[in-house]
Amino acid sequence: MNDKAPTPSAVCESPGLLCLVARRMGIDTQHEAIAFVLHNSVVRRAEGFAAQARIEIHHGSKTIIATLFETVGDHLGEGEIGLSEAAWRRLGVQEGETVTVTHPQPLESMSSVRRKIFGEHIDGKELKAILGDIATGRYSDIQLSAFITACSARVLARDEVIGLTRAMIEVGEKLTWEHHPIADKHSVGGLPGNRTTPVIVPIVACAGLTMPKTSSRAITSPAGTADTMETLAPVNLTLAKMRSVVEQVGGCIAWGGTVKLSPADDILIRIERALDIDSEGQLVASVLSKKIAAGATHVIIDIPVGATAKVRSQKSAKLLSDSLADVARTFGVEARAVVSDGSQPVGRGMGPALEAHDVLAVLQNEAGAPQDLRERSLALAGGLIELAGKAKAGEGVPLAAEILADGRAWKKFQNICEAQGGMRTPPRARHHRPIVAARDGVITDIDNRRLSRIAKLAGAPDSKAAGLELHVRLGDHVKKGEPLFTLHAETPGEFNYALDYTANKARDVITIGAR
Amino acid sequence: MNDKAPTPSAVCESPGLLCLVARRMGIDTQHEAIAFVLHNSVVRRAEGFAAQARIEIHHGSKTIIATLFETVGDHLGEGEIGLSEAAWRRLGVQEGETVTVTHPQPLESMSSVRRKIFGEHIDGKELKAILGDIATGRYSDIQLSAFITACSARVLARDEVIGLTRAMIEVGEKLTWEHHPIADKHSVGGLPGNRTTPVIVPIVACAGLTMPKTSSRAITSPAGTADTMETLAPVNLTLAKMRSVVEQVGGCIAWGGTVKLSPADDILIRIERALDIDSEGQLVASVLSKKIAAGATHVIIDIPVGATAKVRSQKSAKLLSDSLADVARTFGVEARAVVSDGSQPVGRGMGPALEAHDVLAVLQNEAGAPQDLRERSLALAGGLIELAGKAKAGEGVPLAAEILADGRAWKKFQNICEAQGGMRTPPRARHHRPIVAARDGVITDIDNRRLSRIAKLAGAPDSKAAGLELHVRLGDHVKKGEPLFTLHAETPGEFNYALDYTANKARDVITIGAR
Repeated sequence: MNDKAPTPSAVCESPGLLCLVARRMGIDTQHEAIAFVLHNSVVRRAEGFAAQARIEIHHGSKTIIATLFETVGDHLGEGEIGLSEAAWRRLGVQEGETVTVTHPQPLESMSSVRRKIFGEHIDGKELKAILGDIATGRYSDIQLSAFITACSARVLARDEVIGLTRAMIEVGEKLTWEHHPIADKHSVGGLPGNRTTPVIVPIVACAGLTMPKTSSRAITSPAGTADTMETLAPVNLTLAKMRSVVEQVGGCIAWGGTVKLSPADDILIRIERALDIDSEGQLVASVLSKKIAAGATHVIIDIPVGATAKVRSQKSAKLLSDSLADVARTFGVEARAVVSDGSQPVGRGMGPALEAHDVLAVLQNEAGAPQDLRERSLALAGGLIELAGKAKAGEGVPLAAEILADGRAWKKFQNICEAQGGMRTPPRARHHRPIVAARDGVITDIDNRRLSRIAKLAGAPDSKAAGLELHVRLGDHVKKGEPLFTLHAETPGEFNYALDYTANKARDVITIGAR
Repeated sequence: MNDKAPTPSAVCESPGLLCLVARRMGIDTQHEAIAFVLHNSVVRRAEGFAAQARIEIHHGSKTIIATLFETVGDHLGEGEIGLSEAAWRRLGVQEGETVTVTHPQPLESMSSVRRKIFGEHIDGKELKAILGDIATGRYSDIQLSAFITACSARVLARDEVIGLTRAMIEVGEKLTWEHHPIADKHSVGGLPGNRTTPVIVPIVACAGLTMPKTSSRAITSPAGTADTMETLAPVNLTLAKMRSVVEQVGGCIAWGGTVKLSPADDILIRIERALDIDSEGQLVASVLSKKIAAGATHVIIDIPVGATAKVRSQKSAKLLSDSLADVARTFGVEARAVVSDGSQPVGRGMGPALEAHDVLAVLQNEAGAPQDLRERSLALAGGLIELAGKAKAGEGVPLAAEILADGRAWKKFQNICEAQGGMRTPPRARHHRPIVAARDGVITDIDNRRLSRIAKLAGAPDSKAAGLELHVRLGDHVKKGEPLFTLHAETPGEFNYALDYTANKARDVITIGAR
């Protein structure tokens, strides 16, 4: 029984531990660690692992929790364990090495989740334990969903929101900066084209604030800020590189994926999206934990309000603003919310490069630059400048407008791009075609979700130049045959996919009412 | 674009539908339908399917919803879709046939779940829609967990429990019987060895009731009633066979898996188990939906109460009893609960054949038969006889005892077994070894969960004769070296597994206190 060979009853040096030979299954289940053993194998039965059980897998100093599935056929033999890509990566195992498998330690923190479900209050220590287990991958999707649902059904009290925020910060990495104040910005919910960050950062940096901004890539949208910025400059910066860029030019616009700020939040967001629920407490903790962990001292938060936006009423926006400011203050951080119009896309482009062209037009003060993107950027930059005490109340926006108008912002943006590794010219797609109005009338509705879908079918965000350019705004008068938007694609296949879908759905994407 | 070949852009005859060639992946994910496409395939990107998205797959008249994963390496080519065993089976597809893939219809019923999460009342129509979507596999684990959690956090009102029960019944099959009354029995929560059904059925059949009993196999326990009964007679009966057995001898004890009674309940139970939560409303709907769908008119419900049982206090047992009786009455069904002792296992055996030997000892009035199993069976049989009006209040248990004592029950049991296909003798295991007391003292605690674990390590329920035989009860005085329980196994490997575990944990399984 002390044999390390891959026999069914192979047991490792530590008595009582089961040893199995690792096989890479070539199955990508994203974040989820999945393990496979042969159907009805002696190992599974003898160890009392049910199929779909959670098991603990150990390799060297690494331990992960995985869900157990079974294989039929010749994928695996007795004494072998197949691993999904995530499991393989996290264990750092090589083909044919052995791993040990055990029943997982009981997930004590789930008892706090159950207490919350049944209406009891949970304290900071319990929240720390829950978030710690979530960040280390110990919660299954079923358990994550119960936690999210419980926090929505049993509304989080103020101290629970604070405890949740603190726990999210503590289970991840934290950044500290020598400068002060450190400015940051967040936008709640994805409004297509709302690419204000690359305009705000250079403006506030010119106003004397330090803004080491990290942004995300697209998850469900045609472009994230990092995707758009990547068409203008490198964004995959190491932390050391970020520090040197910020030291040099006062700000950066980097991809946030290299630093693990509030990692539990990323896991929870995936579940919230699947359930399409988002409680105020979770949202506050989610936004603030990332910003506080990033070392921010002053945070401006854009809250677009609209029928299809994440926040649907002025009243909810007010409650959310107040809670954000209140909770931030307990962490010594100043947060201010700016409620904005979330009824239609911002700017013209949807897709990385097309959005970058909008950003450049605003920074370069082009006559035809999208005014909504310009105004939103100024409102947020001005608010941030005031919040950090670099301008008096009411003087932030004028100052921001001056910095933009006199070319300082554009100069600073170029400096940032150079410092990040060199400025790039956003590409243009090879294929484009305008989609025209089928009748005369007034634009009464623009379906943000369907527009996003079309931009993605055209290839965004993987094809940088793909997406669409919107030519109309709500309330515009159009004549039959005038272009509503232009499709951009890099390959004929994607171009046709987007055109086919558009042909079927055009009437529902942009609604034209009678004059 | 009208080509059926397995090219990335193959489109089926129906325009806009994507055709892919089906490949059996040989991966068993139990109930869960999972589909696989090549990592970053043109198809996935062009269709806008995110990895881990839910997709709808169609083949002939069959449609399923599956979760999408990706493969790396040579499992699949462009234009192919891999299917898990469950997906393969439900679609009834053959290797190399084409299936079409679409985005799923929006899951409208999830908006009712969200309403419940946020504290609103949901009506019968909404519950019907939710349970219908659950029964047809449209809910992901994340969504199922949200529903279960919502029903615990936002306690179900009486009419919601009734609506849930009705919805569970309506989305499944229903049985009808010519006879009346139809007796049934349920035990809440698994108490090891609590195998009263094979004793109750022959007794109540002798008293003039019809009892077409269906039972389950073990899911997490060392034996289900169907596993135990299978060592005594065939239990895989078709519905026609069940009817003829009942017609002939007044009752049966069959495996319930051939009839889909309340199928949504089976799906929900798996999630409840993973979360270890079980709200009263869910429990009432779960128990009653199965019984009402099975055509029962009179139902006796065993509620074991104990520190490690599902129901932990007399107060909860009373609330549950009242709710069960009340909700049953709205369906024209009489239900009565019997609260029993849930502090330790019932009888001696744990494992299919070992429990069958206990049942036989009781039915044959052996002097050494386990008295607790006998008394519990009589209490439930007597209650059922009274409930169905075949005895006056207080006369049910004496009548049941008389039927058992004079050999009528044993004769009836043999008739049932013969009618089901022939009586069998439960096997005896080849390997056994007593586990003895390490000291003198009094038995102060018996850990049901660890005993179950040992019986399963020894091979139960797959090895019919495996398990353990318990020799002590709470409060018994034992001397050092006296046997506490005897291990039974059919293979040396399983025997050693169980012995190893027992050697490590013996002290915690059965606690011996000072005299």
